[in-house]
Amino acid sequence: MPFSDVDQALLLRAVALAEQSIGLSDPNPRVGCVLHTADGRLAGEGFTQQAGGPHAEVMALRAAIATGLPLAGGTAWVSLEPCAHHGRTPPCADALINAGLARVVVALVDPYAQVAGRGVERLRAAGIQVDLAPPGPAREAAQALNIGFLSRVQRSRPWLRLKVAASLDGRTALPDGRSQWITGSAARQDGHAWRRRAGAVLTGSGTLLADDPQLDVRLVPTQRQPLRVVLDSSFQTPPAARLLQADGRVLVVGAQAQPARMDALRQAGAELLLLPGADGRVDLAALLQRLAADGVSELHVEAGAVLNAALLNADLVDELLVYTAPKLLGPGRPMADLPLLPGLDQARRFRFIDCQLIGEDLRLLARRQGADAFLQPGAQPG
Amino acid sequence: MPFSDVDQALLLRAVALAEQSIGLSDPNPRVGCVLHTADGRLAGEGFTQQAGGPHAEVMALRAAIATGLPLAGGTAWVSLEPCAHHGRTPPCADALINAGLARVVVALVDPYAQVAGRGVERLRAAGIQVDLAPPGPAREAAQALNIGFLSRVQRSRPWLRLKVAASLDGRTALPDGRSQWITGSAARQDGHAWRRRAGAVLTGSGTLLADDPQLDVRLVPTQRQPLRVVLDSSFQTPPAARLLQADGRVLVVGAQAQPARMDALRQAGAELLLLPGADGRVDLAALLQRLAADGVSELHVEAGAVLNAALLNADLVDELLVYTAPKLLGPGRPMADLPLLPGLDQARRFRFIDCQLIGEDLRLLARRQGADAFLQPGAQPG
Repeated sequence: MPFSDVDQALLLRAVALAEQSIGLSDPNPRVGCVLHTADGRLAGEGFTQQAGGPHAEVMALRAAIATGLPLAGGTAWVSLEPCAHHGRTPPCADALINAGLARVVVALVDPYAQVAGRGVERLRAAGIQVDLAPPGPAREAAQALNIGFLSRVQRSRPWLRLKVAASLDGRTALPDGRSQWITGSAARQDGHAWRRRAGAVLTGSGTLLADDPQLDVRLVPTQRQPLRVVLDSSFQTPPAARLLQADGRVLVVGAQAQPARMDALRQAGAELLLLPGADGRVDLAALLQRLAADGVSELHVEAGAVLNAALLNADLVDELLVYTAPKLLGPGRPMADLPLLPGLDQARRFRFIDCQLIGEDLRLLARRQGADAFLQPGAQPG
Repeated sequence: MPFSDVDQALLLRAVALAEQSIGLSDPNPRVGCVLHTADGRLAGEGFTQQAGGPHAEVMALRAAIATGLPLAGGTAWVSLEPCAHHGRTPPCADALINAGLARVVVALVDPYAQVAGRGVERLRAAGIQVDLAPPGPAREAAQALNIGFLSRVQRSRPWLRLKVAASLDGRTALPDGRSQWITGSAARQDGHAWRRRAGAVLTGSGTLLADDPQLDVRLVPTQRQPLRVVLDSSFQTPPAARLLQADGRVLVVGAQAQPARMDALRQAGAELLLLPGADGRVDLAALLQRLAADGVSELHVEAGAVLNAALLNADLVDELLVYTAPKLLGPGRPMADLPLLPGLDQARRFRFIDCQLIGEDLRLLARRQGADAFLQPGAQPG
């Protein structure tokens, strides 16, 4: 049986299950699994739990045991290739083999070096038919949900999403910095759902000193808090900053050692990192590599015009998440302090991938041209 | 038979027919008509032709004559109340009565003083059952399509739609004024489709002197050109301006008489109007009244930041039509030279009513809060 429309639909169901891993499975990928008996009855479903906990396949197998339906000769649909290595849990490929399945359908091959086709090989070696999704909705959905994981594994850096709330005329604040609130409560809540997706939330010392934000996930339920990162060249973050009071890890990254301030911050619970770049400021590219090495898949940036511009100028912004309020502000702060362009054809180009009304505001999602080239739409290995 | 789902669907069909009156029927409203025989067969359809030409009902009756199907005892669905007066054409109500119809279903009562319920009365006096659409999709669609006509008749001014093409960070041009092109060719073509809807296209002398635009409808087919209006306090428009070379009427509106320049413009084919306001500039509210009196239902504005701000400050902008390109420009010109706000809660508020991808750009449509209050969603008279 080759890849069919039913496979497409059940893989999309597996991806929908995988969405429940958001805010839970990081740094592991978001994976869902659907199991059918040999005669086509639903036997179990599952999604990947917290790191160290069971993966999607094991959750689905447990659900199948609970229903008591037989899996021998059955089929599994998984949104990502089953793992083949002993990490914190035994290989999922073995669990599927032991269950006696006849066929496994995979939305996306896992590029992670310890999997990377070996899960498929292991299943096939055990006589299981393995079908990989061709380019299409299920594979795209599996990629979109794990774009941060794929970026981290394939590019050694997180998928960087820059969030901005602005008026229709592109202002993020009045000239004096007042910005509460340009967008409505629904947009602010939606913004917290995007924070929850992220392994880390990044801001700059300017925003920290001006607004004293908490940067945690509060307006939507979550089972873990993302790491909060403050870019702060000379460690000006006050030890009494609100984000150091809230639950969860805080990392302050500077470029110049300031022993007294650093001690005070360490005592307030902050982790510290010195990453001086060639220009005496924090080395942004090195920071992203470091965050990826620490397991940050999606990096959510909520910063001011200065840090936004630094990230844009370094071509490190992969995606813009723009909440646009149906208002005109007139004079105000720009999204980014970008340099004057020599001509219109030098403008930084993005590609719109979504537009939705969130309350009274619009939410626009745009990807930098070429940023998602690593997703490779062609045939899959394995 | 009360108003049914079939009525809703056939009124929406009548509105779809009426869309073909765009760029054709101005200053008359856009109206469509569907005729069924007594036993429910489609007998004819029609939409309103150019001013002085046949209305939708007459076109549908002619189509029914061509098919030869009997109309006695049949039903008509019309997107606007049939006229009851002798204008340039005889009353449509009489034509429907003479055809022997048993029932007429009307999406929207015509507020025009010479109709305003009299069409319905005339039909009922002849023994025809008339049903008016309740608030719902058909009535809303009929209103949206004729929002300019309704504005002109009910508010004595056109529905003013301000078009802007901007980058994602709200810039309409580089600081030196270069703006060709921020948005793509699909957005520019779409912009001409909105020009075609309009009875007049308005710009200011600043844009005229800087860009020498034609402001006509070129990128989509049309059967008429909108009036082009230049706001030009001291009549600085050069007689060689490109918009005076293109087909169609041009009106230059000033505030200070400049006999020599005015003579030259007149000889170049322009119509002239002096409308000084209290501040020595053109009286914008008076201009809108004047344009409405001349039959302009929708006024399409493509201007620079100065005129945009003047219209916004005078609360004359009903709708924003914003093409947003997926680009960041950095320093550049704003949508409007608005004054500094004392606080965020004083921002000019709109309401998003549509968002669509047009080529690579987004098209956002937003209405000023309260601008469409004249549409009155309640019960209809008649």
